[in-house]
Amino acid sequence: MVKLPYTLWIEGDRVLTWDQRLLPFREEVIELSTWQQAAHAIRSMQVRGAPLIGVTAAFGVALGLRELAGSGHLESSTSAQTGLDEICASLMATRPTAVNLAWGVNQVRNAVAQARPADWARVAWARALDLHAADAQCNADIGKHGLIAWEALIDRAKGEARPLQILTHCNAGALATVAWGTALAPVYQAHQQGIAVHVWVDETRPRNQGASLTAWELARAGVPHTVIADNAGGLLMMRGQVDLVIVGCDRVAANGDVVNKIGTYLKALAAQAHQIAFWVACPISTIDRDTPGGMQVEIEERPASEVEQMHGLVEDQGSALYQQIVGVRVVPVGSAVLNPAFDITPAALVSGLITERGTIPATGEAIRRVLALEAA
Amino acid sequence: MVKLPYTLWIEGDRVLTWDQRLLPFREEVIELSTWQQAAHAIRSMQVRGAPLIGVTAAFGVALGLRELAGSGHLESSTSAQTGLDEICASLMATRPTAVNLAWGVNQVRNAVAQARPADWARVAWARALDLHAADAQCNADIGKHGLIAWEALIDRAKGEARPLQILTHCNAGALATVAWGTALAPVYQAHQQGIAVHVWVDETRPRNQGASLTAWELARAGVPHTVIADNAGGLLMMRGQVDLVIVGCDRVAANGDVVNKIGTYLKALAAQAHQIAFWVACPISTIDRDTPGGMQVEIEERPASEVEQMHGLVEDQGSALYQQIVGVRVVPVGSAVLNPAFDITPAALVSGLITERGTIPATGEAIRRVLALEAA
Repeated sequence: MVKLPYTLWIEGDRVLTWDQRLLPFREEVIELSTWQQAAHAIRSMQVRGAPLIGVTAAFGVALGLRELAGSGHLESSTSAQTGLDEICASLMATRPTAVNLAWGVNQVRNAVAQARPADWARVAWARALDLHAADAQCNADIGKHGLIAWEALIDRAKGEARPLQILTHCNAGALATVAWGTALAPVYQAHQQGIAVHVWVDETRPRNQGASLTAWELARAGVPHTVIADNAGGLLMMRGQVDLVIVGCDRVAANGDVVNKIGTYLKALAAQAHQIAFWVACPISTIDRDTPGGMQVEIEERPASEVEQMHGLVEDQGSALYQQIVGVRVVPVGSAVLNPAFDITPAALVSGLITERGTIPATGEAIRRVLALEAA
Repeated sequence: MVKLPYTLWIEGDRVLTWDQRLLPFREEVIELSTWQQAAHAIRSMQVRGAPLIGVTAAFGVALGLRELAGSGHLESSTSAQTGLDEICASLMATRPTAVNLAWGVNQVRNAVAQARPADWARVAWARALDLHAADAQCNADIGKHGLIAWEALIDRAKGEARPLQILTHCNAGALATVAWGTALAPVYQAHQQGIAVHVWVDETRPRNQGASLTAWELARAGVPHTVIADNAGGLLMMRGQVDLVIVGCDRVAANGDVVNKIGTYLKALAAQAHQIAFWVACPISTIDRDTPGGMQVEIEERPASEVEQMHGLVEDQGSALYQQIVGVRVVPVGSAVLNPAFDITPAALVSGLITERGTIPATGEAIRRVLALEAA
């Protein structure tokens, strides 16, 4: 079984990934051998996280073209084009609002557009592999720059003969990407380099991505960690038990404001109160130059059921549902629920944005500069 | 069925309360007709919250003495004393660490010590009724002083033709007391006076007292409210959707630092960041003059299982456990958990302590003054 930090990996011509719906309680590797399986994996949320969805979709197109090649459908331009269009349309429809989904499909579609149909299967596979490698490399670079940014804190912890104490919120780990994750990339790299680390894992209500996904992937990679209620971080910071906070981000505004999982802002305030570094792992693709500030972002409100119901494993051996994953209601029927998915952390609370190009201040000026470099 | 704000109420010579273990999913009133039933209610946590436990124990002694009177055991001093000692010892043993338990038992024991055994049943019942009335009155007074403290905010909300927006954490409501609650006392009084209020109810992980108990009692009393994840409060404050925060407290240090349910501190920081009033409902009995500051309080660490497991109602009609309350694991086996029960909110973040004697600043000087008045 493959070792993290890879979440989607290739063995010969086989595409493998975890069934994330079953995590953290059942570890099942699924093989995507047909484009229908790739589509199903996206639709059913066996894979999740924008970059992972995009790359899975790219492999989906490649797998589809491999099938068309095998059945002789790439021998005529017309049938090749029809087949390609069908596959792309079906993949695009799996989760209509995922931007990365369309991106992944179009990357492969554009690549084959330059080639003869007879080469499509080979070209598509190569392009999907490229996208896979590029996401892994981007995150590995975030990890590298994170370790540079944390150098003084790492040295201090080493000097005190104790692990570097890191707090993270939600899951910006390997499971949200092809490999390494964003916020967890420096954590994994530190661990691989023998730097002692310990991660406080926020449960991250209401969807519990911390307690389920982050805890699972850290455990699997052998990184010491402790799950805490989202409520506990303030006390830990007050007691000096946190050296730094690192989170991912869903979007960074042009002024450096960070939109990330609900609850991020409360941790940023606590970090500021205790002069604790608060880092945001930020692939440059998440910077939105068209959004002037965080307050201009419309915050998605998700279904009440996410707060009302908790899913987990029945452990009572005497229960009829022993070892099954069930949902239980935790809010009284008749109480209203509000479930905003994200909050806004003002740029002033952010110690820096750790990008694949290096760590930059969370300011409009620094962001303009890095975007200009990227475009150049 | 009785209406809130009473959680323990008397009908003739019957003592009635809710079985809180079943809340919020099943509403069952239990009658405590024997001292053994009172002891069972405390031991099994059918009743909870320090004041409620104390008053239930007091009624337990009174019920026991009523039985002794009925069976002729109060006719001799020796058998009366033996019977009383047995009842008190059994009640005291139900939850060994609850300070209010011993307090409730001893209040009744001391009252009967002045009387002839033939009068014990009557005296004990009268004393239990007094304690019941005193707790209700204390909380009603907190409610009254809360409304005075909130006057300007109430006027502003009224002027804007919208409800006063209140955020609360954990359950410092009627269910933790005999009646009214502490933090919710001003909320109930506002509601009864026709002042429009709306309460944001923090879920309050890991034990979910907000989502279960606070939401249930507000619903039952007809107070508009919305359950939110603990993570959501910062965003709501940033958006201007919160006029004030009010919480209860487990202990207030001599300098005004507040020890309360884990997560309180994060809300206090957010309130400060947005210049939102942060009130602490504080019966004078919770002030501990022997604790100089919050950092001197040892924070209880509770079992990991509270974070690892969630209890709720199975709603799936096809399930073998339909309508049963079951626990499910939400943290991977093998991940460590830390579960501190309380955190510390520095006095500087507290707008004021709302006591039964009036609202005072959270400062050492004001606390010394109110304690001196109380002693006088």
